[in-house]
Amino acid sequence: MTFGYVQLPDLEELEELLSLATASRVCALQRVLAHALTGGKRFRAALVATAAGFASPDPRAVARAAAAMELIHLASLIHDDIIDEAAFRRARPSLYRLFGRVPAVLTGDYLFASAFNLIIDLPKSILKIVTRAIRFMCEGEIAELGEKNFDVEAYFDRVRKKTASLIVASCQCGGILGNLRGAELQQLEKYALNLGIVFQIIDDILDLTGSPELIGKPSLQDLNRGIVTLPVIHFLNTSEEGSAWREKLARGGLSPEEARELAGRLASGGSLHYACKVVFLKIKLALGALEFLPAGRARENLREIAWGLLTPLRNLNYPDPAEELAKKIEPFSRGAGNLEKVIGGGQEILGAFLRV
Amino acid sequence: MTFGYVQLPDLEELEELLSLATASRVCALQRVLAHALTGGKRFRAALVATAAGFASPDPRAVARAAAAMELIHLASLIHDDIIDEAAFRRARPSLYRLFGRVPAVLTGDYLFASAFNLIIDLPKSILKIVTRAIRFMCEGEIAELGEKNFDVEAYFDRVRKKTASLIVASCQCGGILGNLRGAELQQLEKYALNLGIVFQIIDDILDLTGSPELIGKPSLQDLNRGIVTLPVIHFLNTSEEGSAWREKLARGGLSPEEARELAGRLASGGSLHYACKVVFLKIKLALGALEFLPAGRARENLREIAWGLLTPLRNLNYPDPAEELAKKIEPFSRGAGNLEKVIGGGQEILGAFLRV
Repeated sequence: MTFGYVQLPDLEELEELLSLATASRVCALQRVLAHALTGGKRFRAALVATAAGFASPDPRAVARAAAAMELIHLASLIHDDIIDEAAFRRARPSLYRLFGRVPAVLTGDYLFASAFNLIIDLPKSILKIVTRAIRFMCEGEIAELGEKNFDVEAYFDRVRKKTASLIVASCQCGGILGNLRGAELQQLEKYALNLGIVFQIIDDILDLTGSPELIGKPSLQDLNRGIVTLPVIHFLNTSEEGSAWREKLARGGLSPEEARELAGRLASGGSLHYACKVVFLKIKLALGALEFLPAGRARENLREIAWGLLTPLRNLNYPDPAEELAKKIEPFSRGAGNLEKVIGGGQEILGAFLRV
Repeated sequence: MTFGYVQLPDLEELEELLSLATASRVCALQRVLAHALTGGKRFRAALVATAAGFASPDPRAVARAAAAMELIHLASLIHDDIIDEAAFRRARPSLYRLFGRVPAVLTGDYLFASAFNLIIDLPKSILKIVTRAIRFMCEGEIAELGEKNFDVEAYFDRVRKKTASLIVASCQCGGILGNLRGAELQQLEKYALNLGIVFQIIDDILDLTGSPELIGKPSLQDLNRGIVTLPVIHFLNTSEEGSAWREKLARGGLSPEEARELAGRLASGGSLHYACKVVFLKIKLALGALEFLPAGRARENLREIAWGLLTPLRNLNYPDPAEELAKKIEPFSRGAGNLEKVIGGGQEILGAFLRV
């Protein structure tokens, strides 16, 4: 199993469990599930497996927890598609467009139940983590729909719930299986929370800068739907044009022309650069938290996963400053030795990134 | 707590647990949840509580299982509304119409997670029953969407999954808490399965015959949507006009005029009568299964619940034979003594019903 540059302990049973857990004698459902399972980076499974590596737990238990996280993620993606009416997901037509709204709702529900079924025999703490994460995710998504809030704090609160909660839960479950407890588990959660925020901000950046081919879905979707992401919030709160754009966004989504115009402003006005800075700050916090965990292969892998998240920034068509940033990431993104230098160097080296 | 004529052991904690389990600091979500929780007969909670009455389990455990079943039922209703695009539910505008599709998807997910959260500390067998029931429900609903099948067996298979599975699960959970095991638990499941089928067929009948005021939603919805219910299946398979209507239904939903016309045919051609007969047969099977359970208050209450299900037939505007049937039910629907007579009399007395 690989994730980015990271070679992870193989979870032979993962794909098998995913197939088994989603097997159904109802042909229509089986077709939908097979479609849903294809593709995907298995990011949450990788986190469970990696964090579990702090000890040597039963690989079947690890595979079950990992598969459950993937199923929950998949269920939430499917339900998100209905919400977004998104036509593309993972570069293929979404379940919603392909099979209609109805199977999508039901397939999501089926996957939630299948996920619980997988982890019923694991420690209760894991079940509790999972149910809490789902509740958080729903709260975060509903908050996003509610009032238009152009405040940075509200943004981070939403992201913590919507995106980070399942990433945190994956690390928590892995950590528990990997025998981490107390302060160590808390540091792992801190790592995961920052990782989750990075994950979302990179998604925000890619929506503004990535080509549809690169990101597997049409770009500028967030702006078209009136979802205010971190670069946009920065722009609204710092630019002279902010209040004019605020009014447009408060009315709902932007037109394609308006969205393209605003995306240009975000690039030229430094708001994308700001978002990149926050990404690096959060990566630093994530890596810092890892320092408190037992040294060894598991910790190295968690580090690599964090750096691996930055990979898409390297592929951006967006020329500057992200490309420059990306070039500077490259030397550090392979091999733990170099990473030590980055982190060891602390504020100076990170500062070099941030000043790009 | 009452259900129909039945006075059930009070679950003081039920409503409190329902409120607690659905409490959220996200205002938008809280508003939606409060709307979702209002109304409802708490039928599944009543089954859990009643079946648990075969022993004296911790009332908090019973309340938790009962609340979980209600939350799962509610979640599935909310998701069904999206599927059906139904505008009315429980005589009030549906969540979907009131708050939009998005909060409805998320609120359903939130309720599923809340339900699991409630039962995490109960025996694992209960968690397994619940996840299996949800998977069955989804399979049943998806099967309903798939191919048009006008076969009675396919209908019962769908109903077993779609409607009966949560009713069976409620009785199973109650029975486990009530210390039933092995053959007794199997008989309770048989009771519940037949009860679930009755529940659905009465719903089918009411959709054809009930006034919107009575049933809390517009009538003839099934036909308008092209969902083939038991009376329709009987008509298609027995009437000379069957093949003509088959073609119309196979094309999708009927127009309002066509739906009214077919409903008239079902009443005059004996297909509603057939559905009533099946109801009584299934009630007989349900009551027969109860004979194998320990005598006492719990068993009496389960009997009363079964008879109570027939109550709506008494209120039908549909004059004959349902009204006649209903008159004959009345004397038997109160008091265990009379029920004994009905069941004790076996085929003869049931035959008298069926010959109406």
